[in-house]
Amino acid sequence: MRFTKMEALGNDFVVLNAMQQPLKLSAEQIKLLSDRRRGVGCDQVLLAEAARDVGADVRYRIFNADGSEVEHCGNGVRCLARFLVNEGIVSGPRIYVETGLGINVVEIARDGKVTVDMGAPLLKPEMIPFRASAQEVTYNLETTSGSVDISAVSMGNPHAVLVVDDIATAPVHELGTVIGAHPRFPNRTNVGFMQVKSRDSVMLRVYERGVGETPACGTGACAAVVAGRLRGLLDSTVNVELPGGQLEIGWRADSEPVMMTGPARAVFHGEINI
Amino acid sequence: MRFTKMEALGNDFVVLNAMQQPLKLSAEQIKLLSDRRRGVGCDQVLLAEAARDVGADVRYRIFNADGSEVEHCGNGVRCLARFLVNEGIVSGPRIYVETGLGINVVEIARDGKVTVDMGAPLLKPEMIPFRASAQEVTYNLETTSGSVDISAVSMGNPHAVLVVDDIATAPVHELGTVIGAHPRFPNRTNVGFMQVKSRDSVMLRVYERGVGETPACGTGACAAVVAGRLRGLLDSTVNVELPGGQLEIGWRADSEPVMMTGPARAVFHGEINI
Repeated sequence: MRFTKMEALGNDFVVLNAMQQPLKLSAEQIKLLSDRRRGVGCDQVLLAEAARDVGADVRYRIFNADGSEVEHCGNGVRCLARFLVNEGIVSGPRIYVETGLGINVVEIARDGKVTVDMGAPLLKPEMIPFRASAQEVTYNLETTSGSVDISAVSMGNPHAVLVVDDIATAPVHELGTVIGAHPRFPNRTNVGFMQVKSRDSVMLRVYERGVGETPACGTGACAAVVAGRLRGLLDSTVNVELPGGQLEIGWRADSEPVMMTGPARAVFHGEINI
Repeated sequence: MRFTKMEALGNDFVVLNAMQQPLKLSAEQIKLLSDRRRGVGCDQVLLAEAARDVGADVRYRIFNADGSEVEHCGNGVRCLARFLVNEGIVSGPRIYVETGLGINVVEIARDGKVTVDMGAPLLKPEMIPFRASAQEVTYNLETTSGSVDISAVSMGNPHAVLVVDDIATAPVHELGTVIGAHPRFPNRTNVGFMQVKSRDSVMLRVYERGVGETPACGTGACAAVVAGRLRGLLDSTVNVELPGGQLEIGWRADSEPVMMTGPARAVFHGEINI
């Protein structure tokens, strides 16, 4: 089986081409492909399949290392788009990708970066979900570590965003744990800590629910820029500096989609018997 | 650059063929090859080079992920031997490998396993090094966790070996820390915990100095069988069950070499630009 190992901001993928013929992978085979010592090693396995929808160029499937299928991943879809163009499967620059959440428009830029439509943010408290009597720009949250002001944004998954003076000294682990498990977030939440450098540049660290701090959370970057825009701190295109690398996030307002632009690259090509 | 990813008891390697032309890798390139997300990913990089000694088939070089060169690795040399035979570079079954410690004879068995001559054990206390007035089969060691009986063996690196009743409940971390740093081992020591199941079968867990418990320490398996033979508990060929897999260790006595037989396999082939 031929494969391509790809990487986006340190999030890595084994990408398989199943455009010509369906590829049935067992959970065992996905586990083996994901194994960093006994297989190829990756966070997730991506499958490029023939589209079922006539409006799409490709169907995109994504599997966690345990074999379970998930619907979407911003870093993953950028890698998939680069793979399709690199391999000459589609010509680009605009690619219509069928995901578990509908058709996603992905665009390859001239510098090789990839722009993904991440959808519109959800801000209504019940949609996040977040317990509040009305939608506000910021909410005051009482925690065991004191009172904090947060924004609450869903990008398909919930995010609490805090504005901090210094990203280096922000108590990411402590407040991430406390806010992440706060009873006002019934499904728990990811927690972003954003330092605003200027109207078009921020630094961000994200504590992901169930994981801890991660190097490059794409939906976290989107949620942070949405929160910053709503607070009147940011312009409509913002460079987000994450520990794992940089993303450019664009969002105008309201129900417009958040556009995420970032790198994605092939690391190596290989062949494995599984 | 073409490469083969190989694996032996969970210890993994990127193997490069530099037989035809020398390959100069910078520390930066080795670091990248070793990187599990931004490169191929491995514990160590192995280089098969043309032998400088007329009595050898191949020169074997091994680099840690930080770019530093080391002299030898039992799991690594088995992978190298399998690679040479798989690729048709040597015909086997006996291969003369030039290492930083001299020429090593490696043999491919019919079942695909590989036997490596690990050299004779060193038992004189000053050679291990271990502080004792005379060489004994076991030494009583006073520790902060009580008094324990150990054997002391060097296989190029120092090992303390304890015989325990039950490998599952052995205090590997606690005693490993205490014995590993005991002042009678001036260079510190690895610590093996061996449960003897029969005269030809043992179970072993090893606490490696500076690392902690590891899944499959090859020199630890050799040292344990030497210790068990010296105590009169074992026959000359012993199956050693480690958490990461099985090794067969053969040793008769005295200055005869310890022979280690175990698996080694190619995981996948690939090509990377670095």
